Amino acid sequence: MTPALAVSARERQNRYGHPGLVVWFTGLSGAGKTTLSTRLERRLFDKGRLAYALDGDAVRAGLCRDLGFSARDRRENVRRAGEVAGLLADAGFIVLAAFISPFRSEREAIRSALPPGRFAEVFVNAPLATCEGRDVKGLYQRARAQQLPEFTGISSPYEAPLTPDLELRTDQEGIEACLEKLNALVEDRLKL
Amino acid sequence: MTPALAVSARERQNRYGHPGLVVWFTGLSGAGKTTLSTRLERRLFDKGRLAYALDGDAVRAGLCRDLGFSARDRRENVRRAGEVAGLLADAGFIVLAAFISPFRSEREAIRSALPPGRFAEVFVNAPLATCEGRDVKGLYQRARAQQLPEFTGISSPYEAPLTPDLELRTDQEGIEACLEKLNALVEDRLKL
Repeated sequence: MTPALAVSARERQNRYGHPGLVVWFTGLSGAGKTTLSTRLERRLFDKGRLAYALDGDAVRAGLCRDLGFSARDRRENVRRAGEVAGLLADAGFIVLAAFISPFRSEREAIRSALPPGRFAEVFVNAPLATCEGRDVKGLYQRARAQQLPEFTGISSPYEAPLTPDLELRTDQEGIEACLEKLNALVEDRLKL
Repeated sequence: MTPALAVSARERQNRYGHPGLVVWFTGLSGAGKTTLSTRLERRLFDKGRLAYALDGDAVRAGLCRDLGFSARDRRENVRRAGEVAGLLADAGFIVLAAFISPFRSEREAIRSALPPGRFAEVFVNAPLATCEGRDVKGLYQRARAQQLPEFTGISSPYEAPLTPDLELRTDQEGIEACLEKLNALVEDRLKL
């Protein structure tokens, strides 16, 4: 074992110009999590940052494909996503993690597992009626038709953040305005 | 949704100077997987590469802390590790993954899930007696005392690679010689 040779977080930070960070987007399906995290990834990448959008759908299709949508499986889904986000942040990335992540306790567990200041919770908030009206993936229609059991907001609870680091009302604010706020949040955290 | 804005693998490759890659170190406990992957991480980092050593012990302590050592849990442990390595490679990293990963089928599944040429299997090969003689973590002693059930090489099988991309006999070759071969393997793959 040669631990002295391992690449340290400090060395990575010096190389990349910024520390690792997890920006956690939580909210209902259709609230705009993926849209915003993808746009923020683009913006950070174009500025020369190491940024990676970690999307709930992709993780569901791979790492968590053994899991369903019971409360227990949702908790495990978010736990694993948090672990992966932590690894990516450890590797030096600004991770933009977009997960419904309906339960407060799992989101707080991810915050607790990361170094202080290295987790920012973004509440992507749009009223259920707005999300249901958008219904980009047709999921709400299926949930109302009882074809999707335990659907967050319809037949499974969503616990809104009590003190998010940032709240975005995507039914009231445009994408560019939201991105400005996100960018300010990230730049603020990278200075810490 | 604005998929056209997503950062592509090609853009990442242009930025970082190389594509993502998974180098998978398999072998018995004590064979030298972590030593070699850590040393290779250092070497690649010092050359300006994006490199990250993903270690079995760290993953066991985090992402896979719900898993034990039954054949079923070992398969799941390696499956998840492969998914995470794939995500890190997708983000652009040269991932140096050190996992006993005793079963051929799980290793091959990881190869199959990655783009062609983006997975290299390294068989870190030392005879059981050599590994047991090193016993850095004292695990073999505990396994022989039947305090560790299902220990690879003692009470649980290890399926050696049939056609590894590289085989390193760490009982016969020194660390520097092994690193030269690993470096050549990585450089070769990055050219593809």
